[in-house]
Amino acid sequence: LIAGGQGVVGASLVRALLDAGHEVLTLDPRDDLSLVHDIADQFERRQGSVLDVGQNAELLRDERIDTIAHGAVFDAQGADPFASLSVNAYGVLSMLEAARRAEVPRLVFMSSKAALGQFIGEYGSPTYAPLPPEHPRGPMVGLEVYSMAKRFAEESGELYADRFGLEFVALRFATIVGPGKQVRHGPTSVHSRMIENAIAGAGTDVAHGGEGFDDMVYVKDVAQAIVCACTCESPPRRAYNIGSGRLVSLTEFAEAVRRHVADVEITIGPGVDYIPVPSSSCLMDISAARAELGYEPAYDVDSAVIDYVATVRGLGLASEVNSAQSGWKG
Amino acid sequence: LIAGGQGVVGASLVRALLDAGHEVLTLDPRDDLSLVHDIADQFERRQGSVLDVGQNAELLRDERIDTIAHGAVFDAQGADPFASLSVNAYGVLSMLEAARRAEVPRLVFMSSKAALGQFIGEYGSPTYAPLPPEHPRGPMVGLEVYSMAKRFAEESGELYADRFGLEFVALRFATIVGPGKQVRHGPTSVHSRMIENAIAGAGTDVAHGGEGFDDMVYVKDVAQAIVCACTCESPPRRAYNIGSGRLVSLTEFAEAVRRHVADVEITIGPGVDYIPVPSSSCLMDISAARAELGYEPAYDVDSAVIDYVATVRGLGLASEVNSAQSGWKG
Repeated sequence: LIAGGQGVVGASLVRALLDAGHEVLTLDPRDDLSLVHDIADQFERRQGSVLDVGQNAELLRDERIDTIAHGAVFDAQGADPFASLSVNAYGVLSMLEAARRAEVPRLVFMSSKAALGQFIGEYGSPTYAPLPPEHPRGPMVGLEVYSMAKRFAEESGELYADRFGLEFVALRFATIVGPGKQVRHGPTSVHSRMIENAIAGAGTDVAHGGEGFDDMVYVKDVAQAIVCACTCESPPRRAYNIGSGRLVSLTEFAEAVRRHVADVEITIGPGVDYIPVPSSSCLMDISAARAELGYEPAYDVDSAVIDYVATVRGLGLASEVNSAQSGWKG
Repeated sequence: LIAGGQGVVGASLVRALLDAGHEVLTLDPRDDLSLVHDIADQFERRQGSVLDVGQNAELLRDERIDTIAHGAVFDAQGADPFASLSVNAYGVLSMLEAARRAEVPRLVFMSSKAALGQFIGEYGSPTYAPLPPEHPRGPMVGLEVYSMAKRFAEESGELYADRFGLEFVALRFATIVGPGKQVRHGPTSVHSRMIENAIAGAGTDVAHGGEGFDDMVYVKDVAQAIVCACTCESPPRRAYNIGSGRLVSLTEFAEAVRRHVADVEITIGPGVDYIPVPSSSCLMDISAARAELGYEPAYDVDSAVIDYVATVRGLGLASEVNSAQSGWKG
């Protein structure tokens, strides 16, 4: 079962799981097929909320679910803190409880580097020391609500693992790039904006961030990591870093867009933070995920951009020019 | 409005607020009058859950509530993590949201030293350096569920203060001693067990903890601190330590019980932890609460024991002999 199965990551995960021969059921409050319409007859869908513990326990039992991939997210920017924390924090606890009641053995949680907080000192610019998987959790200033939710959700999963023997694995993703993100995640999707504007023949102006680097991971690598965590035998850790393991600058990314999409003008202002979340860029040490989950990122910047464009065109996704700046208020 | 107004702290707070001339409404899912039957006609009661945001927003608006004292707790031991976190974490977020919708200007949250985690190094035995009010939050091993809830609740309150200008004050209580605790809080209420067994003419055997010290605060001082935090002008901090500011050993406490209640046998085993939560004892620096809230603890060990016994007798509370040890499993 994929909770949030029709979102950016969920949709990519549906494909990866189907490709690997698994049966898939998605749980999503909306029935938005824009990212999965070509494979809509290959998996089951249920409309519902992660907050409905009783109904979800019944669903998990009736459908004999053996693994939950939990990626349901609402209002990541936290504009409405109550709604955001309800889904993104309490919703994970609720799904853990449904899993316990239905005796589902494993829940893989789509966490984020936001669970870890600011990347300062050696982990920040300009040194970007690789972030070990044991990095402690802490608040992320500028993304407090999302960060709180991810920390509470991880703690809940660890609690259920300790108490009830549930296999809980949190995957802490670096900056994810993937089709559909601009529509769903808003102005922080700087990479999507560059690509989708270029598809529409327009340039992009990014006010800040030309001097920074970040670990940027393509959504198909993210999906692969989740498949690994869902299917590998007894992962020894409860949290893994999932990134590309490489630093990429926005300038490098822009060059790839100009090379593979359209020779439009892309300007990037100074500074290191390209979204208004201070010190949120980092480099992930993904060695534990490699060794213990069998994860191996397959996309570099060029192949990610090429695949992104092919996916957008293949799905017939409209690319509208977006001139918003990368502030939350956009 | 006191959420959890019929519990150990809530009941004492009702009295303190009435004494100070305030109007009081309690919100509690049960209508258990055992701690307030003598004053039941002096305040309003509403049965309800802290989780019902819509109904509580309406209640707050209809009753023109100006201050919420939030002390609703369910299953502090976390035997049922979902139920426990629902009330103790998500329930606080829910009440903050109800307060926002009803434009209630202040919420005082009854937090705990459990929000802070273990007291080790200089803050632990044997040095017990006074814990500053700025001590960072961290997990408390052995009380994970309660600790998680208090941390999430404090973070939620700070978020609502940042976002919406709500005045949020968390009071982090030391070990609270007060009538009614044995029935409600179970075997960890070591102090209550000693007193109530003695009232019934029986001794008490405490297996561990004779070598430790703790900051122990009487429930009437706790109530006074909450009244201060509810009524003082714009408290400058969002979190205060509330204790007696003094270290007391179990042996000292047992002597006071023998002196003021009954000359029964009280034996206390070795070690520093008298409940199975490692390094949970500390000494609180209460200077900020003194200076900024006007809090001044009035009870020492002797006067606390004397008042406890008088309260139990005045309310006609049954004192049953309890021979349980202080492990969560009793």
